Amino acid sequence: MEVQAGHLLSQINIPSDLKKFKEEDLTEICKELRQYIIDIVSVNGGHFASSLGVVELTVALHYVMNTPYDQLVWDVGHQAYGHKILTGRREVFHTNRIYKGISGFPKRSESEYDTFGVGHSSTSISAALGMAVASHYKGEKDRQHVAVIGDGSMTAGMAFEALNHAGIENSNVLVILNDNCMSIDPNVGALKDYLTDITTSKTYNKFRDDVSAVLSKISELGPNAHEIVKKIEKSIKGTLLKKSNLFEALNFRYFGPIDGHDVVHLAKVLKDLRDIPGPKLLHCVTVKGKGYALAEKDQTKWHSPGLFNKITGEIKKTAPSKPQGPKYQDVFGHTMVELAEMNDKVMGITPAMPSGCSLNIMMKAMPHRAFDVGIAEQHAVTFAAGLATQGLIPFCNIYSSFMQRAYDQVVHDVALQKLPVVFCLDRAGIAGADGPTHHGAYDIAYFRCIPNMIVSAPMNEEELRNLMYTAQLKNHGGPFSIRYPRGNGVMPEWKRPLKEIEIGKGRKITAGEDVAILTIGHIGNEAAKACLELNAEGYYPAHYDMRFAKPIDEELLHEVFKNFKNVITVEDGCIQGGMGSAVLEFMADHQYQAVVKRLGIPDAIIEHGEQAELWNECGYDAFAILKTVKEMVKAKPTERLVG
Amino acid sequence: MEVQAGHLLSQINIPSDLKKFKEEDLTEICKELRQYIIDIVSVNGGHFASSLGVVELTVALHYVMNTPYDQLVWDVGHQAYGHKILTGRREVFHTNRIYKGISGFPKRSESEYDTFGVGHSSTSISAALGMAVASHYKGEKDRQHVAVIGDGSMTAGMAFEALNHAGIENSNVLVILNDNCMSIDPNVGALKDYLTDITTSKTYNKFRDDVSAVLSKISELGPNAHEIVKKIEKSIKGTLLKKSNLFEALNFRYFGPIDGHDVVHLAKVLKDLRDIPGPKLLHCVTVKGKGYALAEKDQTKWHSPGLFNKITGEIKKTAPSKPQGPKYQDVFGHTMVELAEMNDKVMGITPAMPSGCSLNIMMKAMPHRAFDVGIAEQHAVTFAAGLATQGLIPFCNIYSSFMQRAYDQVVHDVALQKLPVVFCLDRAGIAGADGPTHHGAYDIAYFRCIPNMIVSAPMNEEELRNLMYTAQLKNHGGPFSIRYPRGNGVMPEWKRPLKEIEIGKGRKITAGEDVAILTIGHIGNEAAKACLELNAEGYYPAHYDMRFAKPIDEELLHEVFKNFKNVITVEDGCIQGGMGSAVLEFMADHQYQAVVKRLGIPDAIIEHGEQAELWNECGYDAFAILKTVKEMVKAKPTERLVG
Repeated sequence: MEVQAGHLLSQINIPSDLKKFKEEDLTEICKELRQYIIDIVSVNGGHFASSLGVVELTVALHYVMNTPYDQLVWDVGHQAYGHKILTGRREVFHTNRIYKGISGFPKRSESEYDTFGVGHSSTSISAALGMAVASHYKGEKDRQHVAVIGDGSMTAGMAFEALNHAGIENSNVLVILNDNCMSIDPNVGALKDYLTDITTSKTYNKFRDDVSAVLSKISELGPNAHEIVKKIEKSIKGTLLKKSNLFEALNFRYFGPIDGHDVVHLAKVLKDLRDIPGPKLLHCVTVKGKGYALAEKDQTKWHSPGLFNKITGEIKKTAPSKPQGPKYQDVFGHTMVELAEMNDKVMGITPAMPSGCSLNIMMKAMPHRAFDVGIAEQHAVTFAAGLATQGLIPFCNIYSSFMQRAYDQVVHDVALQKLPVVFCLDRAGIAGADGPTHHGAYDIAYFRCIPNMIVSAPMNEEELRNLMYTAQLKNHGGPFSIRYPRGNGVMPEWKRPLKEIEIGKGRKITAGEDVAILTIGHIGNEAAKACLELNAEGYYPAHYDMRFAKPIDEELLHEVFKNFKNVITVEDGCIQGGMGSAVLEFMADHQYQAVVKRLGIPDAIIEHGEQAELWNECGYDAFAILKTVKEMVKAKPTERLVG
Repeated sequence: MEVQAGHLLSQINIPSDLKKFKEEDLTEICKELRQYIIDIVSVNGGHFASSLGVVELTVALHYVMNTPYDQLVWDVGHQAYGHKILTGRREVFHTNRIYKGISGFPKRSESEYDTFGVGHSSTSISAALGMAVASHYKGEKDRQHVAVIGDGSMTAGMAFEALNHAGIENSNVLVILNDNCMSIDPNVGALKDYLTDITTSKTYNKFRDDVSAVLSKISELGPNAHEIVKKIEKSIKGTLLKKSNLFEALNFRYFGPIDGHDVVHLAKVLKDLRDIPGPKLLHCVTVKGKGYALAEKDQTKWHSPGLFNKITGEIKKTAPSKPQGPKYQDVFGHTMVELAEMNDKVMGITPAMPSGCSLNIMMKAMPHRAFDVGIAEQHAVTFAAGLATQGLIPFCNIYSSFMQRAYDQVVHDVALQKLPVVFCLDRAGIAGADGPTHHGAYDIAYFRCIPNMIVSAPMNEEELRNLMYTAQLKNHGGPFSIRYPRGNGVMPEWKRPLKEIEIGKGRKITAGEDVAILTIGHIGNEAAKACLELNAEGYYPAHYDMRFAKPIDEELLHEVFKNFKNVITVEDGCIQGGMGSAVLEFMADHQYQAVVKRLGIPDAIIEHGEQAELWNECGYDAFAILKTVKEMVKAKPTERLVG
């Protein structure tokens, strides 16, 4: 289906085209841009509500700023669709997030207008400050550097670190606080309340009202009073503006709050701000999903709704070709409630991903035992450690790639102290359309080197439940990580009785000869498919589900290396230092000899696409496993090997 | 030398002994406690100025709070010597930081009074909140949870994340802001200026003065005016107290600033605060090094001065038995200036470690090109990435164990975008007396799995210089990491001409037969020592300095595996996923066969001690290498191995 851009929008290929329009055209351009996003996302999928919320901001920024010379950094970047459309990518926008298409996030290699690659939150102020300091160093005094950051992203520590530094650098940084009270889920925390407070002007208005009431009485006192009243007002205003605001406290000049949907006013304000040097913050109030009524009403649902009928708002469900299992995240969510009902020590924690990881199920069922702590992975982990010191068993659910944010806290606050925190790493392995920033590629490698850490991954829903069940039993007494991928499992009848799994024990899926295939996690199902096909063709590989990368099942590995000269390891994770390397370490430590092929994510940046497409590209889907088995069985050990 | 505690202090073994004293004795107890710290640290070494600064706070806290039921978390923990002395460890305090002695930081396994293990900064609020939420959940309403955190630590993002969460939890958390304007070096950033501003009351006083001046004029207006003035004052005060303060903005009740050296007043305030539920912050102003004049004057020098004459303040220098090289950190510091003079793109960044990593040399020589960004590793890395997008080449110096804090930023903001940021990881490997929180054990493993990352380590000063020189050459265009240990190198004549090193190329140190020893980094000198001794005993191992764990030198490894059946890898880092595993991966990929022993930090928490003691304990000092070579030469490949 061909989507047509509106009359004005179709004349805009790059921002210099936009600048040719008059201010009074901007409102119409915003309307067309919003419609274009709705038209394309409804049939192609992708993030939705965020981009709708910043249409006016996007247009105003490119209208006023001299991009790409002036540098624009979009925090997270899922709100940058309008930006992409206005900066040379309108015609290819229908390839957004599709394999080999454009990225769903700003990306340096894609456009000079994308000054900084994003995906994870709260990096924009640091990056923009780096650019600004570079400009300052080079003497480019007129150059502007803008970070557009949501109030959700502002809760992450690194945003605060950047404000603290920017406040003492005399550089042109404009932070635009895109305040819509939302992360993917409603934003939480004291900062949110504070921003709401400013916006609804409770504090300021209350104060102003109080003082005004008093001052009006003074005015009644006589003719001199008028002058005095003015002085008081000036004094109060000066002080309030100077340091009474959280951002002013960090030496930013604070402007706003202003309506983020009045594009003409936004353009005027941005023009004024261009002329003010130094660190400054513009507080814009926007509505996530603006202009699409359903999205405004249910912003979490419409954050990334999938395909939908743009007229009725009906979200399309693609019927699976055969019965499939539930989403792993939902198995996690429901099992949390079950475990918490059984064990009053179990608590749940998510840093701003209640709907993404399905902890919202527990938050609803037992709100006093499940916490959304904001976009704050570091705090989430150490908060969990604090709970664990008191005998509780927190399950801390953090996407694999976001866990990178809390690596030190896992090492320093949990593993070093051997505290029983359970880490559930959703979106482990290839994440799909979100691409390289979101692939959970490294967690096996970066967790496996940490002492006291248990590293596990379930092959299916039942295993996930059993690993979770095992993790909350007291007897292991240390950190326990469970990684599982985005998307659906394989067991329509997933809700089976909970059973303990012996820690560090794998299992044999298929007996065989020729080759042993060692898998970990859901990707084992690809190996199982390959085995079925191979059996049909007369090959008989053995298949083992390792379940644990650490501690690794030594008994199982002794069996494998005593019986097989050809071994394939398969993981949905990086092959440097991953489960396959653990197998090699075991082999070296025990002086076994075998040909070992490690399949997994290679040492390269993997772009976006469907999981299946990328597993294939990386060479570890069923087809690739099948091919590898055939090659190995054919291949004889080389001369060197026996040599 | 026997150190005697003073008359009162010697009666205090645990806090309940302290509680028996009258308030008027507290000042004397503080005096004795301070003297005891001076007496012991002067002859045993350790952190110094921080603990002196919180003597009164420590005494007041244990006097008022019901520890260990009430829970006290010391941020970082190098200020907790007084706490240790008052909580059962006075008699063993002379073993502080010594191999097998007590830890220099609070540690859960050491005492029930140490509620949370610390070492890295800014974890205390998260941990205390976790404890507080657990107490709330358990219905322990009277239980107090106190985080003592410095103004330096407050600049790290995770402290802010914790405040943001604590502000909406109705839990008993008391944050004591120990404001001394210092990290190890002077604290930097906008927050510091703000705290100073509060403390010197510029804003408040200015405001109050302005308003008072006006109000006094109103009073002149007539008899009704007095009433009106009172109302205005009330209104202003109410508003200012409510939300005008940064901490109040985050929904903390703010108290202070108060004098942190008035122990009696402190005790009174703490008693009052016990009765106030919910999140609250007490702002204490202290002097780092308080009571030891020299330390008050030069707080950075006296942060951890080594041994000293407590009367004269002369710091003792232990003469090395033979000429030794400079500290690696100083080689870094001086070479930075050299490189920056040669290449105007070179910039320097440290998160609050100018004196620790010697970037202070560059900060002094060229302040506009070297940045201390505060305790903010995350921001430091992404700020560096921002600079790098503008064609600059930032050298970001972060201790290996602190780099764990910025892992996501390295992956997401630097490596994914292939930006030329140079990471210099000081304190890589066993860190020594600081112990497990500070050992830089994991960096090879956690960096090696990241695409585009170069992972290198110099064996000596010249190599460090050459790696740094190589890193700032344009041709590689991606992140480049260089790890080196705490302490001194081996080249008294270290300042040699700079030379490019081919990336991914190791070098042969000693030709040999029998066994190939592959080392990376400074620990190679232990292998060199072992080789000398082995030669004398008639063994002839070959020794290769790999220099790079990634990309690994494949040509060199082909040579090794073609010529040796016995290989030893040695690294001052964890053996799971480390350089040795990279060697195993190469071996498997190329189907070589050899017996490979990996020496390095085992999969366990390594406690504190001298580097040499711990290298020995971990089995990779010269002696252990020598022993391993002898064992391997004797051992024949097993039956299993020949297949």
